[in-house]
Amino acid sequence: MTIQAMARAAKQTSILLAAQTTRAKDAALKRIAEALRSHKQVLVQANQKDLAAAEANQLAAPLLKRLKFDAGKIEEVCLGLESLIQLRDPTGQTLSFTELDQGLELYKVTCPIGVIGVIFESRPDALVQISSLCLKSGNAVMLKGGSEAALTNRLLVDIISQASQEAGIPVGWIQLLETREDVAEILNLDDTIDLIIPRGSNEFVKYIMDNTNIAVLGHADGICHVFVDAEADLDMAVAIAVDSKCQYVAVCNAAETLLVDRAIAPEFLPRVKGALEARGAEIRGCPETCKLIAAAPATDRDWATEYLDMILSIKVVAGLAEAIDFINQYGSGHTDAIVTQNPDKAAQFMNTVDTGNAFWNCSTRFSDGFRYGLGAEVGVSTNKIHARGPVGLEGLVIYKWKLIGHGQTVAQYSGPEARTFTHKHNHKDCPL
Amino acid sequence: MTIQAMARAAKQTSILLAAQTTRAKDAALKRIAEALRSHKQVLVQANQKDLAAAEANQLAAPLLKRLKFDAGKIEEVCLGLESLIQLRDPTGQTLSFTELDQGLELYKVTCPIGVIGVIFESRPDALVQISSLCLKSGNAVMLKGGSEAALTNRLLVDIISQASQEAGIPVGWIQLLETREDVAEILNLDDTIDLIIPRGSNEFVKYIMDNTNIAVLGHADGICHVFVDAEADLDMAVAIAVDSKCQYVAVCNAAETLLVDRAIAPEFLPRVKGALEARGAEIRGCPETCKLIAAAPATDRDWATEYLDMILSIKVVAGLAEAIDFINQYGSGHTDAIVTQNPDKAAQFMNTVDTGNAFWNCSTRFSDGFRYGLGAEVGVSTNKIHARGPVGLEGLVIYKWKLIGHGQTVAQYSGPEARTFTHKHNHKDCPL
Repeated sequence: MTIQAMARAAKQTSILLAAQTTRAKDAALKRIAEALRSHKQVLVQANQKDLAAAEANQLAAPLLKRLKFDAGKIEEVCLGLESLIQLRDPTGQTLSFTELDQGLELYKVTCPIGVIGVIFESRPDALVQISSLCLKSGNAVMLKGGSEAALTNRLLVDIISQASQEAGIPVGWIQLLETREDVAEILNLDDTIDLIIPRGSNEFVKYIMDNTNIAVLGHADGICHVFVDAEADLDMAVAIAVDSKCQYVAVCNAAETLLVDRAIAPEFLPRVKGALEARGAEIRGCPETCKLIAAAPATDRDWATEYLDMILSIKVVAGLAEAIDFINQYGSGHTDAIVTQNPDKAAQFMNTVDTGNAFWNCSTRFSDGFRYGLGAEVGVSTNKIHARGPVGLEGLVIYKWKLIGHGQTVAQYSGPEARTFTHKHNHKDCPL
Repeated sequence: MTIQAMARAAKQTSILLAAQTTRAKDAALKRIAEALRSHKQVLVQANQKDLAAAEANQLAAPLLKRLKFDAGKIEEVCLGLESLIQLRDPTGQTLSFTELDQGLELYKVTCPIGVIGVIFESRPDALVQISSLCLKSGNAVMLKGGSEAALTNRLLVDIISQASQEAGIPVGWIQLLETREDVAEILNLDDTIDLIIPRGSNEFVKYIMDNTNIAVLGHADGICHVFVDAEADLDMAVAIAVDSKCQYVAVCNAAETLLVDRAIAPEFLPRVKGALEARGAEIRGCPETCKLIAAAPATDRDWATEYLDMILSIKVVAGLAEAIDFINQYGSGHTDAIVTQNPDKAAQFMNTVDTGNAFWNCSTRFSDGFRYGLGAEVGVSTNKIHARGPVGLEGLVIYKWKLIGHGQTVAQYSGPEARTFTHKHNHKDCPL
């Protein structure tokens, strides 16, 4: 099958998928979990072949770790499927109701987006997660995984496709792409694919964003800031700075830069330095920071770098306004926190820092779908349309307007004897 | 100023605009209406110069009509500004609240998107409408109007900019681009411009959509369908078909194709033909239609054409399933209606036709922001992310997550003595 033909098949199935009941979709998710468990052995075997080939190709150790799909990982994705079943179906929710006139009722109702393109690197568990999120939300999915995982991915898609078909889901909703050329091709399919979700390194996501007209849900950088205001509780500020940087460094919501108000810098910097260094963090400071504490000098490049490592850059600023400007210049719109006891300053920070997640007196590390209670995380978005910050299942739906009448024509609402619209808003679920 | 510098200025002002109060923004809208009224004479003079140049350049009559900005049009846009003041501010609305733990509260709050690029053709009133919608929603705007309206547009932007500044709105939120090269340049500014709204012909919108990575809110085609089911009330079906086609033909929500169930075609087609021809509509039919009534033969091209004219193509179909497939193949996802007395068929149609507006027993012409009671229409979107169908002010906002704590760290929620998240959902407005 050509990529175009696969995309058309996905599109056609997406239409049928939109009419599946919650019960049918959940039954399919259950069947998929059963099938993955019963195929555990062949899955591990396929993955071992992928791993052996990857080792022969001298793949780096962290990549090998991500590629590994063992019994534990299989059980983990199955538990994920079972908790997904418990979540509310994001489709079919009435967002608003307006009576336009007696017997002419307008409903805004959530529905699947259509066809989601997902491009991910080596982790086979990502394939199961994202395809199950698509199924729950009624979307068809075209997947492109890392070529290192080719055998594992092919088997996974066969199992998922077969199991969902057995549960009555129309065939064709999940399509696997296999070559790098396939990716370039789907990036051009803006007539068929409605949304692309890339998962992987910053460079990888940035490449996808720069090379398609299709909407992309994701984030390239996570350059997060903590600003310690002059009116901060300094013990709290130390704890938040340390947690934001050190609690787990390899993730997008870890802080990379600490901004410190000049007024409290002489007192605060030595304290935070001690706490950070006790956790093994390296400090890179602006000239003013380096005068107050011993630190390596930071360059302009540091302010724009997501270290994903035990390194924190520190800059002394004149106050709130400079902190906001700095974050708006260097931040990536992911997560930025202020530590202050002054609610007015907190409000100004939260309203004018252009970020998906604006935090007051807590760690940037809270920025996450699980901690937010979203139930399932589709991804983290630094987009400014559709969905922003941690995105749950609601990021995979859009809405349609459903208007139910009894033969009304617009001609009746124009001219000298025109009927007038009532435009009454109530809570009422769409009956269809 | 270079386009890049203008875009940076717009971006910087957008940050300040996000912190403006509803009162300040509404006061500015009021001041703009006053200024437009008091500059009526110079505006008309500038427009007359544009008109004279356009006539000398032999611009077509419909374009001249759209270019005209006389005292009546000025009063109309001022009334529009005054009704915009009455609308609720779309920003600062709390969409959801979650208590993550005692004293750790998460709010999802609407906020402006940032910088909107608007590209429109000759109508100067569009400039006032869209820039005022952007101001109300707290967005900066970069505008590119038709070159025929250069003098009118320049004066309008000066007046709007000056009046809003007098009302205390930071300068720089409205920027005018003047050359065709400027358009090509802003289409590349995906780092600065967050959303593009093109207004104009199908070809024009399609060109914009195909030539930018920035999200586009709009619609190229409006190929709308009416399907008359075997179980339709045929009097109702005639009235809806006639209204959908003939009530106003030059608009995107007018029907272009009528699908008729084979079972009722022999009875229905002669009746609808009579009613359509009485209104001056020309019919182009599929072979089966042409056997039942006298009509010009339709080609495949007809099914994919937005006539915007008194022409309707008619196709006989085997039933609901074929109608749905046909619409999903040829429709543009704008507005599609079914006429039937059978609620199950209506539900199947509304849930599986992939369209922004799915109608049951009413005219496609209802698909419109005013009729929907949106208050103001930003545009009609055939996108499948962010906003769909008629889009009101809410299409110009996104949300940010605001998390308010008292020094919480993620470390407290991990390890053997981990606190657990409460994830309680309530209705509570964000205090900041």
